[in-house]
Amino acid sequence: MDEVIISKAITDSYLKDLLDSMEVDVAIAGAGPSGMVAGYYLAKSKVKVAIFERKLSVGGGMWGGGIMFSRIVVQSEAKGILDEMGISAKQYQKGYYIADAIEAVSTLCSRCVKAGAKIFNLLSVEDVMIRENDKITGLVLNWSAVSLANLHVDPIGIRTKLAIDATGHDAEVCRIVARKTEAGVEVRGEKSMWAEVGEKAILENTRQVCPGLLVAGMAANAVFGSPRMGAVFGGMLLSGKKAAELAMDLLKKTKR
Amino acid sequence: MDEVIISKAITDSYLKDLLDSMEVDVAIAGAGPSGMVAGYYLAKSKVKVAIFERKLSVGGGMWGGGIMFSRIVVQSEAKGILDEMGISAKQYQKGYYIADAIEAVSTLCSRCVKAGAKIFNLLSVEDVMIRENDKITGLVLNWSAVSLANLHVDPIGIRTKLAIDATGHDAEVCRIVARKTEAGVEVRGEKSMWAEVGEKAILENTRQVCPGLLVAGMAANAVFGSPRMGAVFGGMLLSGKKAAELAMDLLKKTKR
Amino acid sequence: MDEVIISKAITDSYLKDLLDSMEVDVAIAGAGPSGMVAGYYLAKSKVKVAIFERKLSVGGGMWGGGIMFSRIVVQSEAKGILDEMGISAKQYQKGYYIADAIEAVSTLCSRCVKAGAKIFNLLSVEDVMIRENDKITGLVLNWSAVSLANLHVDPIGIRTKLAIDATGHDAEVCRIVARKTEAGVEVRGEKSMWAEVGEKAILENTRQVCPGLLVAGMAANAVFGSPRMGAVFGGMLLSGKKAAELAMDLLKKTKR
Amino acid sequence: MDEVIISKAITDSYLKDLLDSMEVDVAIAGAGPSGMVAGYYLAKSKVKVAIFERKLSVGGGMWGGGIMFSRIVVQSEAKGILDEMGISAKQYQKGYYIADAIEAVSTLCSRCVKAGAKIFNLLSVEDVMIRENDKITGLVLNWSAVSLANLHVDPIGIRTKLAIDATGHDAEVCRIVARKTEAGVEVRGEKSMWAEVGEKAILENTRQVCPGLLVAGMAANAVFGSPRMGAVFGGMLLSGKKAAELAMDLLKKTKR
Amino acid sequence: MDEVIISKAITDSYLKDLLDSMEVDVAIAGAGPSGMVAGYYLAKSKVKVAIFERKLSVGGGMWGGGIMFSRIVVQSEAKGILDEMGISAKQYQKGYYIADAIEAVSTLCSRCVKAGAKIFNLLSVEDVMIRENDKITGLVLNWSAVSLANLHVDPIGIRTKLAIDATGHDAEVCRIVARKTEAGVEVRGEKSMWAEVGEKAILENTRQVCPGLLVAGMAANAVFGSPRMGAVFGGMLLSGKKAAELAMDLLKKTKR
Amino acid sequence: MDEVIISKAITDSYLKDLLDSMEVDVAIAGAGPSGMVAGYYLAKSKVKVAIFERKLSVGGGMWGGGIMFSRIVVQSEAKGILDEMGISAKQYQKGYYIADAIEAVSTLCSRCVKAGAKIFNLLSVEDVMIRENDKITGLVLNWSAVSLANLHVDPIGIRTKLAIDATGHDAEVCRIVARKTEAGVEVRGEKSMWAEVGEKAILENTRQVCPGLLVAGMAANAVFGSPRMGAVFGGMLLSGKKAAELAMDLLKKTKR
Amino acid sequence: MDEVIISKAITDSYLKDLLDSMEVDVAIAGAGPSGMVAGYYLAKSKVKVAIFERKLSVGGGMWGGGIMFSRIVVQSEAKGILDEMGISAKQYQKGYYIADAIEAVSTLCSRCVKAGAKIFNLLSVEDVMIRENDKITGLVLNWSAVSLANLHVDPIGIRTKLAIDATGHDAEVCRIVARKTEAGVEVRGEKSMWAEVGEKAILENTRQVCPGLLVAGMAANAVFGSPRMGAVFGGMLLSGKKAAELAMDLLKKTKR
Amino acid sequence: MDEVIISKAITDSYLKDLLDSMEVDVAIAGAGPSGMVAGYYLAKSKVKVAIFERKLSVGGGMWGGGIMFSRIVVQSEAKGILDEMGISAKQYQKGYYIADAIEAVSTLCSRCVKAGAKIFNLLSVEDVMIRENDKITGLVLNWSAVSLANLHVDPIGIRTKLAIDATGHDAEVCRIVARKTEAGVEVRGEKSMWAEVGEKAILENTRQVCPGLLVAGMAANAVFGSPRMGAVFGGMLLSGKKAAELAMDLLKKTKR
Repeated sequence: MDEVIISKAITDSYLKDLLDSMEVDVAIAGAGPSGMVAGYYLAKSKVKVAIFERKLSVGGGMWGGGIMFSRIVVQSEAKGILDEMGISAKQYQKGYYIADAIEAVSTLCSRCVKAGAKIFNLLSVEDVMIRENDKITGLVLNWSAVSLANLHVDPIGIRTKLAIDATGHDAEVCRIVARKTEAGVEVRGEKSMWAEVGEKAILENTRQVCPGLLVAGMAANAVFGSPRMGAVFGGMLLSGKKAAELAMDLLKKTKR
Repeated sequence: MDEVIISKAITDSYLKDLLDSMEVDVAIAGAGPSGMVAGYYLAKSKVKVAIFERKLSVGGGMWGGGIMFSRIVVQSEAKGILDEMGISAKQYQKGYYIADAIEAVSTLCSRCVKAGAKIFNLLSVEDVMIRENDKITGLVLNWSAVSLANLHVDPIGIRTKLAIDATGHDAEVCRIVARKTEAGVEVRGEKSMWAEVGEKAILENTRQVCPGLLVAGMAANAVFGSPRMGAVFGGMLLSGKKAAELAMDLLKKTKR
Repeated sequence: MDEVIISKAITDSYLKDLLDSMEVDVAIAGAGPSGMVAGYYLAKSKVKVAIFERKLSVGGGMWGGGIMFSRIVVQSEAKGILDEMGISAKQYQKGYYIADAIEAVSTLCSRCVKAGAKIFNLLSVEDVMIRENDKITGLVLNWSAVSLANLHVDPIGIRTKLAIDATGHDAEVCRIVARKTEAGVEVRGEKSMWAEVGEKAILENTRQVCPGLLVAGMAANAVFGSPRMGAVFGGMLLSGKKAAELAMDLLKKTKR
Repeated sequence: MDEVIISKAITDSYLKDLLDSMEVDVAIAGAGPSGMVAGYYLAKSKVKVAIFERKLSVGGGMWGGGIMFSRIVVQSEAKGILDEMGISAKQYQKGYYIADAIEAVSTLCSRCVKAGAKIFNLLSVEDVMIRENDKITGLVLNWSAVSLANLHVDPIGIRTKLAIDATGHDAEVCRIVARKTEAGVEVRGEKSMWAEVGEKAILENTRQVCPGLLVAGMAANAVFGSPRMGAVFGGMLLSGKKAAELAMDLLKKTKR
Repeated sequence: MDEVIISKAITDSYLKDLLDSMEVDVAIAGAGPSGMVAGYYLAKSKVKVAIFERKLSVGGGMWGGGIMFSRIVVQSEAKGILDEMGISAKQYQKGYYIADAIEAVSTLCSRCVKAGAKIFNLLSVEDVMIRENDKITGLVLNWSAVSLANLHVDPIGIRTKLAIDATGHDAEVCRIVARKTEAGVEVRGEKSMWAEVGEKAILENTRQVCPGLLVAGMAANAVFGSPRMGAVFGGMLLSGKKAAELAMDLLKKTKR
Repeated sequence: MDEVIISKAITDSYLKDLLDSMEVDVAIAGAGPSGMVAGYYLAKSKVKVAIFERKLSVGGGMWGGGIMFSRIVVQSEAKGILDEMGISAKQYQKGYYIADAIEAVSTLCSRCVKAGAKIFNLLSVEDVMIRENDKITGLVLNWSAVSLANLHVDPIGIRTKLAIDATGHDAEVCRIVARKTEAGVEVRGEKSMWAEVGEKAILENTRQVCPGLLVAGMAANAVFGSPRMGAVFGGMLLSGKKAAELAMDLLKKTKR
Repeated sequence: MDEVIISKAITDSYLKDLLDSMEVDVAIAGAGPSGMVAGYYLAKSKVKVAIFERKLSVGGGMWGGGIMFSRIVVQSEAKGILDEMGISAKQYQKGYYIADAIEAVSTLCSRCVKAGAKIFNLLSVEDVMIRENDKITGLVLNWSAVSLANLHVDPIGIRTKLAIDATGHDAEVCRIVARKTEAGVEVRGEKSMWAEVGEKAILENTRQVCPGLLVAGMAANAVFGSPRMGAVFGGMLLSGKKAAELAMDLLKKTKR
Repeated sequence: MDEVIISKAITDSYLKDLLDSMEVDVAIAGAGPSGMVAGYYLAKSKVKVAIFERKLSVGGGMWGGGIMFSRIVVQSEAKGILDEMGISAKQYQKGYYIADAIEAVSTLCSRCVKAGAKIFNLLSVEDVMIRENDKITGLVLNWSAVSLANLHVDPIGIRTKLAIDATGHDAEVCRIVARKTEAGVEVRGEKSMWAEVGEKAILENTRQVCPGLLVAGMAANAVFGSPRMGAVFGGMLLSGKKAAELAMDLLKKTKR
């Protein structure tokens, strides 16, 4: 056991992956449930995908279930995704499945990485890269610790064919695009809670918001001003899957 | 989709598990790598086990690899645990395996919960329960948010046949026992880095420190004043496994 | 005395009440003087009522009297409520009664709970639940400690036939409704101090602001841009009583 | 309604009480459960008593029950005090009564003030007054806001025949006396949780710790190094009552 | 030396003055140079005047001179006020006098109080009192420590025939009046530095801004959008004097 | 009015005084009441004296009187100093004079500067200068803003024949000397309140603590472990006067 | 080695330079790369120039390279400036030179000062000085520590024929001019990243924004709403050089 | 200009240097004046040397001169080092040279890097690596941002033949060695100011404190309890040079 070999192994291995991920097919901002589901389906289809997560750990608000009671609810429509991932769930009442939040988020992440998606934690999306007509062509990244520590350090840019904003309620990437480009994106903000309507809307809202940028998960409802849903995660999972499918379609069109 | 059914499903389901976990065979403080490995092996052997984790997410410092480069090194001796868990690892140099920290921690957690261990996040171990001769008979828990928010709220106690302190460098439970009981535990503090020696010591240090309390992972080296190791995790995983084995032996002896 | 029985007694008992309060007739945000008076009169009339209070303790700013001198003034019109509650008050000058703020707030709370209102402290109203035409149909709750501790955890929703915003100067629920729904509520902000006018206005302002939502106490003056009053609490108490009466009328109409 | 009459009524009334309380028979530091019970029984027996509470509201940690579930447990021995106060309690299991924490703390406070005890909130005990042989002869008070706001402002002293430290776990007055006098008081710190033993010890520990100073409630166990009990409050209430009885005995002896 | 007599002497004496100052002829917000000069001239003419200062000490930014070099400059026009106060000043260059900032501010304060003005420190003006047509009829005060300590405590109101906003750059009272009344006051904000113009403007800007409210010192330039001047204080002193003269004129008119 | 002349006048004038004060007869740390009285009497006797004050304003805790009620008490023995300074005081009870704290502190400061003492505010004493046998030969100063802003900037040293620690309760200079030299100074900490004894002790404690360093005011009682006194300031003023007299004696001896 | 000579040497020497720099030809706000390059070329041409830097150290974000990897990229066009300064750079790929950020920033600073520019660190530009038609005629300065320490201390003004805003992304001086004058400056904010376009725009944007004020470096792109570039510094260096040339032209015109 | 080439150039280039510096001859903790001088002389002699600096910029407290007046004093003995570096200095008085702090620190750094020393900023020394008999064999590093941001991330170890603690007053590495090893190092803390003695002592104190660890600069005086010197930097520079010479001697001995 030599400490320097350990230091080199870690540095070498990480940096190769980081350099390799500086040009990808799809870059996802946010490793919450919808981002990881999207990453899973993209990687499974051999799309080159990287997920950039601001926090030390993945999963966003899913770990805490509802009011720190770490359970989540998933409706029938999304039960298939739980099954595909191997996440156990018990029926609470017809149409309502209850799962352990910790099992759910860790299993989602484990499956996503094993499918081939690269997750880079501790990196924040600080800005986007643009080209003619404000087309989004990349993400601008920095260590989250830089802003947490209030340091003044420049970011770097990475190139992507498509970006997905899966940053949750804040819709961070869309807000940046709204403020710093002329791409015509507007973030309306999520509305008050209405689970039924919110769950439906999230799928419709999962779409391309401007050339090069899709939105998924709660960010989708935030962008289009649809209601929030609370600790029910079916729509989130389905939105991630739909975002993956949309991205693959768009990539195909681009190739032709 | 009715919000109140969702609220009730979450509350009902969580509280039943919490009430059920108020009397367990083994209670583990800390859902870092050693705590989750211990939980996995205990649950696999049908021991009733609960893990209490202070943070929102599990995994402790493992997510960040070394200096935020999210890779970890595992030596040959512990490669078997990675294999058992299904965590991929590549050989970097003879005897040194490199794994993705995010895959490692999420897979460990996923497997631990599926094996049957209950993980309760956002709950801090604030104190222990004692009986005659300062035998440890339970953990005293509170929402971590209570102290983070600087609120004055009383904790609750849960009963366990054995407790494992897997809280890492801080050896939090052992420090409490050292300060607030006469059980004779002393926390010497970890020494400077020496991977080779630290990795060996951690296994020897994984043991019962006073009636009712075992120590595992970095907490073991902190209690006995052994060196730290850095971002090599073999000893941590083996320590978790050894703690599980020791606990099962002790439980058997108690039964007789 | 067994700690685990204590833990179970507390958990069991609280959870039953929490589950039971997930569907109520009237949900009140804020256990300040007007909220507790409203709760008292509603409970006395056998209406199923729950009060959700953000802080550890009830009473809001009443404890501190004026500039930390813990006395309050109540005018003749509201003396009857003090009498009904059993709060002692001495005449200072004709029409001006002076009471001990600590006796007043603790007695109000004691009577409110004994009358049958359930008070849940440490829970914040984070949002509302809406249905067609932005009718308010519930409150969205989270532990206050979650935001104080800066954690990312989802809330839960509870259903109510009517909600009362009794959150004081901030008119928190009305501000949420103004920002996150199309219900047409606007919060004008309280005006500078004019006790005479403020005390009259508060009763007129105690009314339904949109389907499903009433406003009471200082929140009423804040919503409608009326003057503040300072440490005179007569209007506050009368507003709470009026809110209770209005709510009962509305509930009756709904039943028919 | 004239604002200036209101201002004068509050200032006049409060200051008269404050001036009057500058010389009392018993001064209690801390308006938690044991302090308020002591205050109640002393006032009921016509002893001149003032309680000084650091926080805006009284009740200390009682509001939050166990882990924010606002219920408390009281054992049979102390049921009589609940009955005397008029606090409802249901039997959970033989010997264990469960009460609503909010009803309990507000009713205790209401009854204590009505019995004639003066409670001054927002005032911290910063030091004690001493005379020959370090006898405690008074409390040194300051607005809590002064230290919260980090201001440099001198305190004032008030005289008392006896002081009771009912400041909870911190045993603040005893710590001051230990650090700043030669009275021979030592604060050992509470031990880990053992409800059975803690509940018994608290009564034995409720006693005079040096001439002029008694200790009650959790402060008593903290001073003498006895175990903590968690969210069971029987011993706390009984300790408050015993402190009142001891104080009355001591006052009688002094008179003779 | 008896501590309780000391406590009573302080409380008694302060409270009498506070009660007496609840109805004054002129109430000045801010004990900076212009407020204290105004207070001095008003008191000298036997007008009943009280100054309310947010900070522990008076003098505002005058103590620090320019960039912490504690010297101030005063031009010839205002040399007379220095002489009247007995503040020494040396000519630096024709028309420019230099004085010790510490001597200046302490002497100003000393003379102001001796002339009969009451200065109340540690009290913030939180709001104003209004009557018909938003006429300002009083100030609403609270301990500064209340907001510094983030406490929720109500203020009290005091009555004044005229109020002077001498709160400096922030023009705090005028901003409150602009935001919370319909009195038509607007705060334009001070412009960039131009000493010559700023010094002239400050005298023109020292005037009544709405019925019952005058503005003096830097607040005057802030309200009317005139330039700042830096560490030259002649205009400030003259503005204070002019405000006193204006106030006396207005009081005379009112009497008639 | 030219801004640059103003800037130069301030910089020139201040820096000359600062350079001149780099070698003084007596350097006083702390411009509280005892430091300013000492400075006054020294300057009056033509001793070259500089006072260094950490805060923006002088006066320490005197501004706030007792519990923010800005009045102070002075006993008969010290009435003469009030008279000498021209500070008005009314008899409250035989032997107890009450004065306005704001008048007292500002007048003290005004008189001290006019007598010829230089007060430098915003400068902290960070360390002392020593020579053989740890004799104190100077003060080491830095802008207070440097440490408040957490900057890393070196201090400068100034030379003095004698230093007086008048920093109050903290006895900052004595603590530095105790920690960073072998001069044999020990700071015992002030004891609990006993006005009678504290007021006597302060005069005895006002003395030289090691070659080159005297202590005055509350710092004297803190060094020698005597009781505190609260908001009675007679001893403080007398201590300042005594320190001046002692210093003059010591300077004379040195000259011979 | 005498400490007082050291203190005097430092104070004397600094103050002379500070007084001398109170009237300059060009005052530059910000000692980042563009400000220091501008300072270098101006000083080299014997223009009297002073640079005011808010931080303790110069260089701004250049020290951290990209994401804390302390390397910077410079394109061919700006290689000449590196050569002139003596900063080594290796070609990474055709047209892309890579340099050590630490060597670059320290060498730039060293050369700038040696060329004769005065750099004053720890001084913030708080405002500007204006004359007729809002022409900028000076900078208003204060110690940065004053605002970091939240002190209330007045600034001083210095005169300059021309000012250059080289404060980076924030364009601090331009924002002040936009907010506090009528000079017609507007800060549009930088756009998202597009290195190619940003690098071209920065040169065009380096110009006079209103009489007396030029803008250089990232501040130029921020003012005119051009894209950011990331850790490529060629445009920054060229912008500094162009600003120097423009300033010299303007100074010449003024002279005529 | 392609952003991704820029990102790759930076990452590639930095990582190669970081990997290369994981095994060095001399590792210096702290890029203050003594560390940079040591680095300069070592690199000049072709020793492989890396400097690790906690802050974003190098230079430590040198930038601020004395009390933010950015000038430093150097005595005759060290004038030669200034000359060697090309730092201008003027004689202030015989034996006292005064230099611009900003020129000094930037030039020192520039020359140090050009001589071949690698400076890594933003990396903190968190611990040391040890072998048999607590010989120091490496430094344990982490991003400073990790602890500033309060993240839980493991460090990495790098190997060095010799380490130099040049961390200034705090003597950080020596403190770690004192606390976490048995190497027998004790940090006595610097004494009060005595420039003459401190300047001499620093050279004697510049030595090996335990196998593998030298100490230089203020850290040397802190370890051995010698006086501080203030803003005179001659001893610091000479100490850096001596540390380099000592290190080269020790390396030669090791080779043989």
